[in-house]
Amino acid sequence: MAKIKDTAVEPFLDALASQTATPGGGSAAAIIGAMGAALVSMVCNLTIGKKKYADVEDEMKHVLGKAESLRRRLTSMIEDDVQAFDKVMAAYGMPKETDADKARRDDAIQVSLKLATDVPMRCCHAAREVIDLAGIASDKGNLNVISDAGVAVLAGYAALRSAALNVFTNARMINDRAFADAKLEELHELLAGAESATENAYDVVKGKLS
Amino acid sequence: MAKIKDTAVEPFLDALASQTATPGGGSAAAIIGAMGAALVSMVCNLTIGKKKYADVEDEMKHVLGKAESLRRRLTSMIEDDVQAFDKVMAAYGMPKETDADKARRDDAIQVSLKLATDVPMRCCHAAREVIDLAGIASDKGNLNVISDAGVAVLAGYAALRSAALNVFTNARMINDRAFADAKLEELHELLAGAESATENAYDVVKGKLS
Repeated sequence: MAKIKDTAVEPFLDALASQTATPGGGSAAAIIGAMGAALVSMVCNLTIGKKKYADVEDEMKHVLGKAESLRRRLTSMIEDDVQAFDKVMAAYGMPKETDADKARRDDAIQVSLKLATDVPMRCCHAAREVIDLAGIASDKGNLNVISDAGVAVLAGYAALRSAALNVFTNARMINDRAFADAKLEELHELLAGAESATENAYDVVKGKLS
Repeated sequence: MAKIKDTAVEPFLDALASQTATPGGGSAAAIIGAMGAALVSMVCNLTIGKKKYADVEDEMKHVLGKAESLRRRLTSMIEDDVQAFDKVMAAYGMPKETDADKARRDDAIQVSLKLATDVPMRCCHAAREVIDLAGIASDKGNLNVISDAGVAVLAGYAALRSAALNVFTNARMINDRAFADAKLEELHELLAGAESATENAYDVVKGKLS
C-alpha cells in the first residue's frame, strides 16, 4: 500500500474505518498533531510581513521554523506507527513449537513492544511542543485567523492524549519494567501542564472572538 | 484545486500551512471529526463477528451504521467550509462605490456569514454524535483496539470545540442578533456535557489499559 502521507484523505479515512488494525489511532494521532503544526504555520505565515504585526515578526518567524520542523517529524510518524505495529504483529506470528522458538518469539515481541512504545512517545513530545507554539500564535498571531491558532492548540492536545493511549497500551505488556516505568513517568510529566496550557490558549482565543 | 478529500495527506498539510486562508481550521475540524467517526467504525468492524463479543453484536452494527453516516457528513463538510469561507471573502470583495453598491455588499456579507455559521454548526452536531458513539465503543468494543475508541472520542471532542471557534468567529459579525444568539445558545447546549462525556470515555479506556 502507498504511504499514508501520499494517500488521499478519503481513501485514508476508508482504510482507518476498515477491519484492518492499521492504520489506527496511532497514525490518526500523528496526522492530528501534524494538522496542529500546520495551522500554527498558517497563522505565522499570515502574520509575518504585516505592518500591524511588525513587533512580533521575529518571534513569528522563529515559531514558524519550529512548527514546520514539528510538522515534518509528525508526518514521518504517521508511517512509523504503522511499521511499529506491523513489527509487533509479525513477532506474535513467529513459530512457537520448540522452547527455542518460544524464546526467540518472546524476545522479538519484547523488542517490538519497546519500539511501539517509543514511536507514540515521540508523537507525545512533538504534540506537546505544538501546544506551546499554538499558545504563542494565540497570543500574538493575526487576529483575522486567531480561531486557527485555537484549532491548532486543540489538535495538539488531542494528538498528545491520543498518542498517550498507545504508550499505555504497549508499555503495560513490556517485561522490562524499568524501561516501561521510565516511559510512563516521562509521559506523566508531558501530560501534566498540557491541559492548562491548552485551556489557557483556548480562553485567549475565545476572548478575542467575543 | 482538487477537492481536499481527493488530495493526499501531505499536500493537504502543505495547503493548510500555507499563506492562504483556506483550507483552515474549519476543514481541519471536519477531517478530525471524520477520523473520529472512522475510528469508531474500525472498532465496530473488529468487534462484529467475534464470538467473544456476540452479546454486543447488534448494538455494534447499529453504532457502525451511524458512524459511517457521520463520517460521510463530516467528509462533505471539509469542502463546505472552504466554500462558505470563499463566499464571505467574495462578499467582502464586492464593489462599494455607491450607496446601492454598499447595501448590496452588506446584504451579501450578512447572507454569507449566516452560511459560514451554519456549516461549522453542523460540524459541531456531528462531532457531538461521534463522542457518544465513541463512548459506546469504549464501553463495549473489542479490548484489542480499545485505545482506538479512546482516540475516536478525543478526535470528536477536538472537532466539536474547533468547529465551535468558527461559529464564534462568524456569529459575532452577524447583524441579525436573534439568529446569532439562537446559534450560540444551540452551541452552548452542545458543548455542555461534551467534556464530561469525553472524560468519562477516556477514563474507561485508560482503566482498561492499566
